[in-house]
Amino acid sequence: MKVGYLGPKATFTELAVKRVFPELEFEPYRTIPECIDAVVEKQVELAVVPVENALEGSVNITLDYLTHEVEIPIIGEITIPIRQHLMVHPSNKEDWQNVSKVYSHSHAIAQCHKFLHTQFKGIPFESVSSTAAAAQMVMDQPEMKTAAIANELAANEYGLTIVQRDIHDFDYNHTRFLILSGQKVDFLSVSSRGYKTTLMITLPSNHPGALHQVLSAFAWRKLNMSKIESRPMKTGIGNYFFIIDLEMELDDVLIPGTIAELEALGCGVKLLGSYPSFIVDLN
Amino acid sequence: MKVGYLGPKATFTELAVKRVFPELEFEPYRTIPECIDAVVEKQVELAVVPVENALEGSVNITLDYLTHEVEIPIIGEITIPIRQHLMVHPSNKEDWQNVSKVYSHSHAIAQCHKFLHTQFKGIPFESVSSTAAAAQMVMDQPEMKTAAIANELAANEYGLTIVQRDIHDFDYNHTRFLILSGQKVDFLSVSSRGYKTTLMITLPSNHPGALHQVLSAFAWRKLNMSKIESRPMKTGIGNYFFIIDLEMELDDVLIPGTIAELEALGCGVKLLGSYPSFIVDLN
Repeated sequence: MKVGYLGPKATFTELAVKRVFPELEFEPYRTIPECIDAVVEKQVELAVVPVENALEGSVNITLDYLTHEVEIPIIGEITIPIRQHLMVHPSNKEDWQNVSKVYSHSHAIAQCHKFLHTQFKGIPFESVSSTAAAAQMVMDQPEMKTAAIANELAANEYGLTIVQRDIHDFDYNHTRFLILSGQKVDFLSVSSRGYKTTLMITLPSNHPGALHQVLSAFAWRKLNMSKIESRPMKTGIGNYFFIIDLEMELDDVLIPGTIAELEALGCGVKLLGSYPSFIVDLN
Repeated sequence: MKVGYLGPKATFTELAVKRVFPELEFEPYRTIPECIDAVVEKQVELAVVPVENALEGSVNITLDYLTHEVEIPIIGEITIPIRQHLMVHPSNKEDWQNVSKVYSHSHAIAQCHKFLHTQFKGIPFESVSSTAAAAQMVMDQPEMKTAAIANELAANEYGLTIVQRDIHDFDYNHTRFLILSGQKVDFLSVSSRGYKTTLMITLPSNHPGALHQVLSAFAWRKLNMSKIESRPMKTGIGNYFFIIDLEMELDDVLIPGTIAELEALGCGVKLLGSYPSFIVDLN
């Protein structure tokens, strides 16, 4: 079985898929739509794409593609804590505080704002296309005494030495991925921390209180939401749809009953998936 | 008066600030936290940062920084439609269909998935750190016959010729920016399409229906929401806060009454700003 993921290699997405599917084959794709198309067209059996707080790839593209373009169910979710490390070429490891420049992805640089602002004040940094690309640049130019901000996998992949661990500002930041597949998959190798069910809901008209009415259908059944997000429809400003994550597996009564009621009220409801949720800790 | 914005030059953010503040001075910043810090520390009077669908900069960093790190009000919002064009070096404009490679930011490449998949099938593309950097690369290597996907400003700034307009997949995609400032600013030069008020709300405890109760306070007053988004608190998984945009200016009765009720129920409510909203059309 083959897993497609958003590349390049040594990114957080690769970290996630290697932990959850250690025994499978992997194929990196260059964009989220290409990766999702690959599973729709059966070039791969599984696709793993970012859906929250991703460094690589726009989360909105994932949601928009899943809701507007393709019919492929979500069969799992992976959450990994974001941990950024400072790394240098092994020959510069004693002298790392005197690096001349720091390379990373622009979001990773922003995530390490306090560290760079206090401990590396005045040292220039440069955004490159991914944290893995930053690691490669540092490996390729040892004489320049540069550093990269990247994850553990990038340090291993490119042979860099981590000189300062966990330099990100917020400890509880995480990145979230969806596993997409047209077939049933057994996740025996990882332990789940629970189930989620994701629905896409469009409102009958943009009137005050319509969303409140929708949420009533969940609330009186005590269906807990772990996420709600409004996104503009691709049909113009002013029309919205909502992505709602419920903290339970699809059952025979409560969720189908809610969907039926919402449809009777004129809402559009699309079940994007009901799936186990995994947390992968990197240490 | 000086406006700080998220660089580099010739990005959508620069497009936005130049349209709304044509007569002011500009200063690009390298990250969103640096740009917000600049207005807090009064190096600039205004800061413009992306908050939705941005190519450059993580929207989550903007929301997290505004809600957790600083106290600076939102004083305006700018929405611009996303329009991506294919551009080449002027010397290659007759032969643009035979380019050897396409450069752009990874999100822009994903936004033009259908165009690349159908009209440029098989031609390799490469992600670089911004659409402006892509335009610069194409300008610097005319003999390589490369193309960039970028906006109109980048074509002008780097002297490229647009050979195919509006190659993005979705016509109604837009990107949204917030204007932050500690002082009152007059937006006489642009016409507003209305007002918004943005609130950050934390729930008393993560129990089913708490959000529904919060929304009830808005719904019975017929306060229309244009956006709702849940975000994890930086204190660990399982705690959420909500960002709610109301489609009205802060009044003396309805919004203050809602806030007082929510606080009485044990919610935390922070008013992030009440501000005019502008749409900038690029043609």
